[in-house]
Amino acid sequence: MERPTFGEDGTPDVENLYARRSGNGPHLMFAGHTDVVPVGDAAAWTYPPFSAAVHNGKMYGRGAVDMKGGIACFVAAVGRHLEKHAGLNGSISFVITGDEEGPSINGTGKLLEWAKAKGESWDAAIVGEPTNSEKMGDMMKIGRRGGLSGTIVVHGVQGHVAYPHLADNPVRGLVTLVESLLYPAFDSGTKDFQATNLEITTIDVGNPAVNVIPAKATATFNVRFNDTWTDETLMAEIHNRLDKAAGRHKLRPGKMAPVNYELTWRNRVSHVFLTHDEKLIGTLTSAVEATTGKRPQLSTSGGTSDARFIKDYCPVVEFGLVGKTMHMVDERVAIADLETLTQIYERFIADFFA
Amino acid sequence: MERPTFGEDGTPDVENLYARRSGNGPHLMFAGHTDVVPVGDAAAWTYPPFSAAVHNGKMYGRGAVDMKGGIACFVAAVGRHLEKHAGLNGSISFVITGDEEGPSINGTGKLLEWAKAKGESWDAAIVGEPTNSEKMGDMMKIGRRGGLSGTIVVHGVQGHVAYPHLADNPVRGLVTLVESLLYPAFDSGTKDFQATNLEITTIDVGNPAVNVIPAKATATFNVRFNDTWTDETLMAEIHNRLDKAAGRHKLRPGKMAPVNYELTWRNRVSHVFLTHDEKLIGTLTSAVEATTGKRPQLSTSGGTSDARFIKDYCPVVEFGLVGKTMHMVDERVAIADLETLTQIYERFIADFFA
Repeated sequence: MERPTFGEDGTPDVENLYARRSGNGPHLMFAGHTDVVPVGDAAAWTYPPFSAAVHNGKMYGRGAVDMKGGIACFVAAVGRHLEKHAGLNGSISFVITGDEEGPSINGTGKLLEWAKAKGESWDAAIVGEPTNSEKMGDMMKIGRRGGLSGTIVVHGVQGHVAYPHLADNPVRGLVTLVESLLYPAFDSGTKDFQATNLEITTIDVGNPAVNVIPAKATATFNVRFNDTWTDETLMAEIHNRLDKAAGRHKLRPGKMAPVNYELTWRNRVSHVFLTHDEKLIGTLTSAVEATTGKRPQLSTSGGTSDARFIKDYCPVVEFGLVGKTMHMVDERVAIADLETLTQIYERFIADFFA
Repeated sequence: MERPTFGEDGTPDVENLYARRSGNGPHLMFAGHTDVVPVGDAAAWTYPPFSAAVHNGKMYGRGAVDMKGGIACFVAAVGRHLEKHAGLNGSISFVITGDEEGPSINGTGKLLEWAKAKGESWDAAIVGEPTNSEKMGDMMKIGRRGGLSGTIVVHGVQGHVAYPHLADNPVRGLVTLVESLLYPAFDSGTKDFQATNLEITTIDVGNPAVNVIPAKATATFNVRFNDTWTDETLMAEIHNRLDKAAGRHKLRPGKMAPVNYELTWRNRVSHVFLTHDEKLIGTLTSAVEATTGKRPQLSTSGGTSDARFIKDYCPVVEFGLVGKTMHMVDERVAIADLETLTQIYERFIADFFA
């Protein structure tokens, strides 16, 4: 077991944990995080957010489902497995970070690089994030959409609203460009993924004078994209839409002029991925079905997770608790769910190493 | 002659001047302002901005054309007229304010109310603003477009970009509404006026988080409108466009939902007006033509002026110097133009009272 601390200019140092129980056979990774989102309004909680108070069969606390609960279940599952068996027919590693809800810079990404540099490699990984929507057994995640963001700046010519022919209002051009990103839709989804979706997260001009045509207008967008696209093809499509729209821009009713714009991509594109590993998905599906009686939906929906780092090292799936209350006041987990998840993980470990 | 000072909460007190030379006959108003726009970068001026330095037949200074020069010419014209004639066959009033370039709250509007309350009334008015574009005799203004402004706020539902179905991005709705104001054009102009023009002066969301769908988006617009419209019919048209667009709004590709928006009109609508007085326009046109050899264009173009207050009391036209350098560094007037304008005004006075 090692607890390396990683840091980077402009971000807080973060301690991580890498622990391996070694045996002769395949190497399974369990990944998770111990950091949590802020409690929000602490006074609004029914029980103090870090008390782990149990009432009516539920344990209350920030991180109960996202995702200290998931880590506890996996630890318990490994313990039970070792009690019942002489040893492991392989290795299990815990890859635990304290930087998943924050900037995600000094966490799983650096921890995996660090471990790889020490000679570590893995055959399969489970991330213990809450994946079930209503009940245990609802859903397993086998991939994630990619994500990328960009900022468009349109340069115009400032002037007086009474003399528009002496000015060029950049808002007109920006609206034209934004429309080209919103419509038509990029795709209507694939077999494994939801439709690609683009949101304009902000538009800003900041001109307080109602008689002045501004000089500059800015918009930022975020796209969550499916396996119709790679980062490169999607970026090319976006450039293409903007260039086409910029060319057919109406400067004013009756007058055409190209839009003078710049597009800057934001850092940290996350790549779309889909796990195809039959053994990993099949073994986990069977364990869920045997324990809950339900066959989990194999989903690629929702936001990003640290699986985006792990997918570069080995096949990865995500399965954990019921996420319904995560990030909310009164985050809570049913004690029965903790037992169910422990049984699922225990069965999975037994079958994976069988 | 009186110099009343007017004030109002939130604005600086401003001294104004009302001076009348009385005689038996019609009452002519000359209106102008002695305040000026800021000098800007004083170091960039070739001669100090308040030195009235004369070089190569031009006088340099802030206000040279906009519009201390115009006032000087009218004063000189009245002086010359009185030297040549026994008296006035009527009355001439000077309506001079120090609040035209600023908020225009404690100036001509209040001064005319004040004078009317004292029993004053007028038969015709000339505003001495610079109206000529290149040379003396180019242009007289016989009306002005109206102006109005409004702010649109679209309310959405905040959320995470990865879960757009749980949110409602107000930017999408705002872009739809803004497009409905930009296209199609409101009109293509009338016999006397340029086309009505709408500018979006700002759009603001202020969301710094690229993974968050914002809750609110705001846009402000300004319209300069011609005599196709009254304030009321134009406001109704704008409401109508917004309501129609709001109804056919695409919440997301494939999903429709009405836009939840509010429109707030800004204060101080300025009404469109056109002066039809044959005697006033004809007499001034003849004076310009006789002096410069050019028949001035009768225009309604450009921004607003204090004529918008005067038009409620008597017919009003605007004629003054060449406006080319107004508001700029090195604002300047040709000495010859000052002489020309004085001659035009003198001839107009003689003909008007003949």
